Order: sequence, then structure tokens, then C-alpha cells
Amino acid sequence: MSALECPHSSQFTQTERTTPKRSRERVTYEREAAYQVLDEALFVDLAFVGPDGAPRVLPTFHVRVGDTLFVHGSTGSSMGLGGRDEFAVSATATIVDGLVFSKSWFHHSMNYRSVVVHANARLVTDEDERWEVFKALINRMAEGRADRSREANPKENAMSALLAIPLEEVSIKQRSGPPVEEPEDEDLPFANGVAPVSTVVAGRL
Amino acid sequence: MSALECPHSSQFTQTERTTPKRSRERVTYEREAAYQVLDEALFVDLAFVGPDGAPRVLPTFHVRVGDTLFVHGSTGSSMGLGGRDEFAVSATATIVDGLVFSKSWFHHSMNYRSVVVHANARLVTDEDERWEVFKALINRMAEGRADRSREANPKENAMSALLAIPLEEVSIKQRSGPPVEEPEDEDLPFANGVAPVSTVVAGRL
Repeated sequence: MSALECPHSSQFTQTERTTPKRSRERVTYEREAAYQVLDEALFVDLAFVGPDGAPRVLPTFHVRVGDTLFVHGSTGSSMGLGGRDEFAVSATATIVDGLVFSKSWFHHSMNYRSVVVHANARLVTDEDERWEVFKALINRMAEGRADRSREANPKENAMSALLAIPLEEVSIKQRSGPPVEEPEDEDLPFANGVAPVSTVVAGRL
Repeated sequence: MSALECPHSSQFTQTERTTPKRSRERVTYEREAAYQVLDEALFVDLAFVGPDGAPRVLPTFHVRVGDTLFVHGSTGSSMGLGGRDEFAVSATATIVDGLVFSKSWFHHSMNYRSVVVHANARLVTDEDERWEVFKALINRMAEGRADRSREANPKENAMSALLAIPLEEVSIKQRSGPPVEEPEDEDLPFANGVAPVSTVVAGRL
């Protein structure tokens, strides 16, 4: 049975580092919900440990294909591959859905959906896989866009790097709904509610 | 002369880790431009190294006050403070301004403004400083909001943690303008251009 045929669980397996220390009620391990966020987000932030042992984080364009997250880099980038076959990364994508205004400072919050991935990333070297993923990256900008633009030539192809990040250790944290209010605050003369936040893309080509 | 009176440079000092390996023309060290992105972004992604040596990244709400970035955490969070006075972090904020559709796969891109910060973060313990920053966090959600909601009580105050991240080692990477086209692609029968992206907050309270 190939990886494509292998049925995956609808729930990610919870691990120590995907277990929150607080706000546990906001964290789940639902695969489809996490994939929806990854598919909607315009970029992911990718973190890794630099050669000096300090953390690095940078935004990258990404596409999810099945149970793998692919991020786009460059062969000359500072991602710290350094000839290694794989290396530890953490990636996150966040959609903000609203600003939550409570009657108390403490309960001000945001409505959001946020995915965090922990994994060992590998450099994609198989040419067929690279081609399929580059195509998927272009098609993510607009449906069918890969057929409405010129394919990469060998020189361009050689200038791009792809990292594959297996989606195995994943959590999704989210908040929705109205502000929380303490009973003693209900009568305070302050407005409360949610200001919706939306990200709009006008006119994909 | 206090820190507040100390005139800072309009340019951040470039370091090895804020020096890009490629796309150098997109990276600058302009303080005001970086601050504008941090002030506009709805969240930052904060990266640090976990106790297992692997990278962690998570979204946090933030506010910039002068030359310091403050991020909001919780006393029970997994930020890995572990009793340390300070620890290495990297933080990033990104605004996406457009999707860039080129006639070639290779020149598809995004218009964006992205700030990356490297620093040692410290836990804010001074009560006056904490109060001022919590107030600034609330006021960042809507102008004057701290005066239109109930202040934190001692119990609520004790449940919140603040990290201070000095804005000293900072870079800003940005792209704007139309797609790049290779001369040989100019006559290809494909549409090209930029699809504007905007994030809209409706009705702050």
C-alpha cells in the first residue's frame, strides 16, 4: 500500500510538545480542521535552530499536498540545511477571525485559528516530486494558474528549493464566539463584542 | 540620560544573521519601516528553542513601546522560561499586500512587508512597567480602549506574563510593485499583475 492509499487517522496523536500548559480547551488535534487552516493561510512561519544554537523564524509560501506541508525556499537561503538530510523545524499558520472586546482588560482576546507543526523537514530532491509541488504552489495562488503561465525552465528549477514537512505532530488552537465576561462586570457601562477581521484577496488571475 | 531620551539610530545595525544569503535587494534595516509593520500586524510569531533542543514557534499578541517589543504570554505557558532571566528568541511579523502573478511560474511572488527580530527576551517583573504595557496592549486593540474597560484586578494581573524583546537586531524584507517578467516572456498570452490583499477589521469598540 503506498503512502497515498494509507488511510490516516482523523486525529493527530497528541505529544508532550503539542500538549498545552493552559487554555487546554482551545487545543484540538483534528486533522481536517488543521488542514483547512493551512490551506487558507497565505504563508507559514517556519522556525529552526541556527548554527549558533539560537532560534530563527521566517515567513515562507507553502502548499499542503496530502499529509505533507511543503515550503518554498531557495538553494542559497539561510535555512541552515548545511548538507543535513533532515532537520527539526516548527511551522505555524494563523488566521485571525476577530478582535474580542470584553468589559474587562483581562478578557480581551482574539478569535483565531492557529496550527502548529513539529517535524523533521527534508529537502525534496526527487525531480518528479519537485515538479508536482511547484505546480501545486502555483495553483494555490489561483486555481489552474500553473496552466496559465510558463513552466519553470531548468535554470529556474535549479534555483528553487523545497522542504517537505510531514504532518504528523500537529495541533490546532482556536477561539471563537463572544467575549467572556465576569458576572460582576455584566452591568459595567462598557461596550463589548467582536470586531470581525477578514483578509480579502481581490482579483486573482 | 534615560533610555527614553537616548536618541536611537534610524538604521538597525546589520549582523551576520540579519544578512540575507540572497534577495539582498529586498532587505533593509530601516527602523521606522520595521516599526510600522510591527504596529500594523495583528500578531507576531515567536520562536524559541525548547528544552529538547528543537525549535518552537507560536503566535502571540504584541505591542511595541518605543524600542521594545512586548509579547503577551501566560505564567503557565510553554515558552520555556524555566526560571531563566533571559533567553534567545526570534520574532516575526508579516503583512501580505498582494499576490503577484507573473507570466512564468518562477516569477510568481507576493508583495509583503516582513520584519524579523533576533534578541534575548526577558520576563517583565516591574509592576509599573507591567501595568503600562498591559494598558498599551489593550489600547492597541482600539484607541483608548483601556479607559473603556475594567482594569485588571490583582488575581488577573498575576495570571499574565509579559516578555520584553529589545529591538536592536532587526531586519525588514519587502517586495512591492508589478511582477518581474523575462524579456522572452513578454509576448506570452498570459494575464499578469498583482491581486491586492488587505486585512480589514470591522468596527473596533
